[in-house]
Amino acid sequence: MTGFAFDCLATDSTTSGRAGLWQTPHGPLETPGFMPVGTLATVKGLLPEQLRAAGAQMLLANTYHLALRPGEKIVEEHGGLHRFMNWDGPILTDSGGFQVFSLAARRSVDDQQIVFRSHIDGTELQLSPERAVEIQESLGADCIMCLDECPPAGESREQILAAVNRTTLWAARCRDAQKRDDQALFGIVQGGVHPDLRQKSAEDLLKLDFPGYAVGGLSVGEPPAAMYSTLDATVPVLPVKRPRYLMGVGRPEDILEAVCRGIDMFDCVMPTRNGRNAMAFTSNGPVRIRNARYRHDQSSLDPECSCPACTNYTRSYLRHLFVAGEMLGPILLSLHNITYYEQLVRDLRAAILDSRLADYRLELLARWAGPTSTS
Amino acid sequence: MTGFAFDCLATDSTTSGRAGLWQTPHGPLETPGFMPVGTLATVKGLLPEQLRAAGAQMLLANTYHLALRPGEKIVEEHGGLHRFMNWDGPILTDSGGFQVFSLAARRSVDDQQIVFRSHIDGTELQLSPERAVEIQESLGADCIMCLDECPPAGESREQILAAVNRTTLWAARCRDAQKRDDQALFGIVQGGVHPDLRQKSAEDLLKLDFPGYAVGGLSVGEPPAAMYSTLDATVPVLPVKRPRYLMGVGRPEDILEAVCRGIDMFDCVMPTRNGRNAMAFTSNGPVRIRNARYRHDQSSLDPECSCPACTNYTRSYLRHLFVAGEMLGPILLSLHNITYYEQLVRDLRAAILDSRLADYRLELLARWAGPTSTS
Repeated sequence: MTGFAFDCLATDSTTSGRAGLWQTPHGPLETPGFMPVGTLATVKGLLPEQLRAAGAQMLLANTYHLALRPGEKIVEEHGGLHRFMNWDGPILTDSGGFQVFSLAARRSVDDQQIVFRSHIDGTELQLSPERAVEIQESLGADCIMCLDECPPAGESREQILAAVNRTTLWAARCRDAQKRDDQALFGIVQGGVHPDLRQKSAEDLLKLDFPGYAVGGLSVGEPPAAMYSTLDATVPVLPVKRPRYLMGVGRPEDILEAVCRGIDMFDCVMPTRNGRNAMAFTSNGPVRIRNARYRHDQSSLDPECSCPACTNYTRSYLRHLFVAGEMLGPILLSLHNITYYEQLVRDLRAAILDSRLADYRLELLARWAGPTSTS
Repeated sequence: MTGFAFDCLATDSTTSGRAGLWQTPHGPLETPGFMPVGTLATVKGLLPEQLRAAGAQMLLANTYHLALRPGEKIVEEHGGLHRFMNWDGPILTDSGGFQVFSLAARRSVDDQQIVFRSHIDGTELQLSPERAVEIQESLGADCIMCLDECPPAGESREQILAAVNRTTLWAARCRDAQKRDDQALFGIVQGGVHPDLRQKSAEDLLKLDFPGYAVGGLSVGEPPAAMYSTLDATVPVLPVKRPRYLMGVGRPEDILEAVCRGIDMFDCVMPTRNGRNAMAFTSNGPVRIRNARYRHDQSSLDPECSCPACTNYTRSYLRHLFVAGEMLGPILLSLHNITYYEQLVRDLRAAILDSRLADYRLELLARWAGPTSTS
């Protein structure tokens, strides 16, 4: 595998947090790092130059969605996602497995593959480990994911163990199927909220020696405390010298807790999805900008933020955009929320480099719960 | 009236086209100039910095819409539209009359005022000449419009004459109602497609000595040839030393023909509305980007255009955005179309300064009708 190097630059003395630098063929990701989600090769409503200005270094795109529309071959004709979507920084694609389990209809799974129907037009399709790698090689992201089986929260221990075993089996087949040497293929740890199954999953995958490890199957309905204790049981099993990616998580407090537990990489639709729904994350807690209290509010959405939404507009104007159904509302709040998330992980990284993450965690929790928190 | 100066810099020797510079309190508009439409104090989907980069110098906002939402008082609390929408260049507001006639329900008009119901919540409202000026003074645009009566195409000559007379009456009342001295109040010529009524309307308004004149009531359903012949009859009556604004027009060919007839200013929703509907204006004619022929098309939307959509993306990607229902499609095509319109008026201005507008007109018409024109 060429073009990659992960350096752990500092470990916080008060938590398990760590600051690193992950070099990829398309440039570095400083860790902890947050990847905005560009499901269909676009972060909804935002141009790459706006994402860059918001602090984003790496994006995520979804294999399942792109395989259906426009089809991975069209992306491949462009030379891959970077050219297709005009993002010259690093990109990660998921395996498509999570979406097949959550979106597709009439699904059947066996050890060989998943057979499902497209959520768009009902076409019958198959996803096997080999096919997941093939699609991701066509898409050409820097970081690609093994196909995993992600059981919903509340599945029996027996079913979760079966998913762990199948995930390991598929991980080996993904590794064997990989042809390109310029993509980092990550294994995905499953195991629900069972510490012993998580440990087994991680240990089984470690034998396959992946260049990085993802923690999947969290933020699927379990309580936050269960997510955190699962990370407590899982992360210590993962190798220090490889990047660790917590898939699909999460709220700012989840990112904070996961960074304290040694996670390096994150992605989540929350900043963009909530932004489109008029909810802004701010340094003093969430703001629901459609609220009538902001009708005459001349103040900045978040005075501590340097994004265009906070620098150039009032809360009153942002509210007006949403009330009037104007596209610029979702655009500006998405831009703000991504800026917020990117600033959050940058601040956490700085706290780790200063070895004061435990104190900083308490500061953040106090601010978020503080008297000026409004919704 | 302070802060304004209109200079006619050159008159084309082959047409009635002219190139000018209109200084306003918020900077210059080079004429012929095109104003993107920001109905609700936002050009749909675009940030001011993107509009500026697309070549826009002046924007239009709609009095009727803003008076309903958020209400002109909220805009006034911000110090006016410039601060509210973060556009530091010149802004023009219409009088609201056209929208009352086209959008509002249960309308009744007499010489005193228009009584109507909001198209949003049915509230009964009044719009008089005095009220139109009052709202526009709260909104604080650089250029404001007299309330006019704009009859639909196909009205009888008698009704159009009545509208001309009422428009003159209202224009005098608007002039008398004006308190601010930093806004240029334009009179609006009506008269349908009747040359003599247009001339009468213009002559009546000239007696009121406005700093600029608009031609209203065109592009309301009449054939293009009727619009052009109406301009032939109207524009020569207008004073050379005042800017001339053709309201709500139009297609690129309409702008071309109107510039050849001595019009200085334009606004139209077409670049943004068509952009949102996947239709791009290009140097070789219109492109309907959802068309299946663009599925694998790696070429630029318009190789002659320097906008982000044309510089950074393929037709295949742009098509994908629309097929997938992604916001970035409307954003990029709106940005492109505004860039196209701004480039068009800049090119027309250059042709006037070189006194070759007649030849340039023929070149453009040939290109637009040419063999590479696709839809």
